[in-house]
Amino acid sequence: MSELRHDPVQRRWVIVAVERARRPTDFKKENNVGNNPTVCPFCDGNEDKTPPEITAIRPAYTSPNSSGWSIRVIPNKFPALSVEGDSGRKGLGIFDMMNGIGAHEVIIETPDHNMHMADMPIEHLFEVCKIYRERIKDLHKDTRLRYVLIFKNHGETAGASLAHPHTQLIATPITPRTISTELDSARDHYMAKERCLFCDIMNQELALGERIVLTTERFVVMEPYASRFPFETWILPRVHSHDYAQSSDELIFAFAEVLRETLHRLKVALDDPPFNFVLHTSPNAVTRPGKENYWKTLPHDWHWHLEIIPRLTKVAGFEWGTGFYINPTPPEVAAEYLRSLEQ
Amino acid sequence: MSELRHDPVQRRWVIVAVERARRPTDFKKENNVGNNPTVCPFCDGNEDKTPPEITAIRPAYTSPNSSGWSIRVIPNKFPALSVEGDSGRKGLGIFDMMNGIGAHEVIIETPDHNMHMADMPIEHLFEVCKIYRERIKDLHKDTRLRYVLIFKNHGETAGASLAHPHTQLIATPITPRTISTELDSARDHYMAKERCLFCDIMNQELALGERIVLTTERFVVMEPYASRFPFETWILPRVHSHDYAQSSDELIFAFAEVLRETLHRLKVALDDPPFNFVLHTSPNAVTRPGKENYWKTLPHDWHWHLEIIPRLTKVAGFEWGTGFYINPTPPEVAAEYLRSLEQ
Repeated sequence: MSELRHDPVQRRWVIVAVERARRPTDFKKENNVGNNPTVCPFCDGNEDKTPPEITAIRPAYTSPNSSGWSIRVIPNKFPALSVEGDSGRKGLGIFDMMNGIGAHEVIIETPDHNMHMADMPIEHLFEVCKIYRERIKDLHKDTRLRYVLIFKNHGETAGASLAHPHTQLIATPITPRTISTELDSARDHYMAKERCLFCDIMNQELALGERIVLTTERFVVMEPYASRFPFETWILPRVHSHDYAQSSDELIFAFAEVLRETLHRLKVALDDPPFNFVLHTSPNAVTRPGKENYWKTLPHDWHWHLEIIPRLTKVAGFEWGTGFYINPTPPEVAAEYLRSLEQ
Repeated sequence: MSELRHDPVQRRWVIVAVERARRPTDFKKENNVGNNPTVCPFCDGNEDKTPPEITAIRPAYTSPNSSGWSIRVIPNKFPALSVEGDSGRKGLGIFDMMNGIGAHEVIIETPDHNMHMADMPIEHLFEVCKIYRERIKDLHKDTRLRYVLIFKNHGETAGASLAHPHTQLIATPITPRTISTELDSARDHYMAKERCLFCDIMNQELALGERIVLTTERFVVMEPYASRFPFETWILPRVHSHDYAQSSDELIFAFAEVLRETLHRLKVALDDPPFNFVLHTSPNAVTRPGKENYWKTLPHDWHWHLEIIPRLTKVAGFEWGTGFYINPTPPEVAAEYLRSLEQ
């Protein structure tokens, strides 16, 4: 089992993944066989090359783990976290650790090895976005899990080890620090002003306009003011809403539409760039002893959104070590360019 | 001039570098001419291809910006921050910004285009490490500057746009978040226990031994307990010391020795990996109104050190978006391997 280890200096948890353990010699030569469709474990017909599916969209006449599906959810073959066991929290002198419990799943978005999310039929992408919702809902039933992280790596530079279109899900017994920092900021803002921080930002950006990429009836797409990366792009629901998993079908359909349009513009603007996206949504709001008040304002102060980061700048190297970002493309310039690509 | 923009959600500053502004089309094709020594601006004889030098180690009979130097410090040709002007702090509705004042320098470590820091003559690396000290001291005279960041990108994957051996220096009017988080952790620990957090960690690791790479009379090299990356390696002075810039020549010579040995082992173990290193040292402890007490414990609670991060794992992609790390190589395994390479 993996371990979650707490860094007392940086005050963050790290997964040390023993199951995926790589020996020093593994790093000397990297092998990449995943981009060859004949051996792709995510392609139709290769269902026996993955662990048994958790759920799938498939015709009623097909059986699980057989051909004919349109979307498949499977456990990651090399999971960073595993579902069995208890948290096993303990101290080790100055350090703290817990067992690597959680879930690590893969959502295979389509049987088509070469389909880009920006080009999916809208009804299909709608199904993918509904699967995100269903998986979050399902995993929130497990009160050991604090956060369900939905993210996508597209392209090798962005960390995708397989080219076949897929999204990953990691459910963790802690809340990742980026999310908890945002929760703190949003909570402090709400406590001071009784307004949502993200609503305030969105309203200011809408009034100003220069960092807006596009707006639809239900969503705003914008480049954030303090963008860390060129073409960093956020998609936010216009109507305040803290939990993606509580979205109606109608909202999710509108989200699929705006997601596809946004990815399409980034693909055109930047020549199919590698990218990551991460869904920022409500933690698992199970009531914990002494924490009841903490969760009470959550529906008011937290605002779900999707953050998309094209992976363009290698010069960003030292940011790993410093938490300090230099962005060579002002978000106003990026937004203007993406606006100009209106269909 | 660049702008420093504050992200009210992530509570961090980002440099939006207008001087280095890259248009969307710049990202479609990357050009790398920097690795060709015939046009390398850092090579001996090409002094006219860089801005005029700030300082240099050169024989007395040579003039500045001429051939014959052994180490040269120059302003970055495309600075992320520039030295003129005041901080210009202001609010923009919900956002905050300031002018991009600061310094951005390049320390050209050697005239030899192909010299690896792990292979430098020790007397030469000693001079390089002394230059780090002198530049920090000099820039700390400027009370607008809060932190002097010394870091090195080695290899294209690590963000080095030029192959010629060089270190970068960025002096900022804010303290980078990674550093300020560490300062907070160390301060809280000291306030509670009147002991240095880093000394405590180092002593526990020395007693345990499994994450120790090597020790010298004056330094400890170890893989941190909650390593974010495979072979993440820290070098700490054994005797408590908060400020690299106050190091004696003797300590810096011992540092150069242990740095070279550590880089050498990483080079052998991982086949000359791309890496970043970042010096974590004291902020500029100028007294600011109302902050006197804040700086009083600094010499006790902060402990300078160097963090080295080999850039091995592309799978780390999504960490950008989440602040969440999955490390596939336990630090005990990495330390054992590096110990086995004893010369």
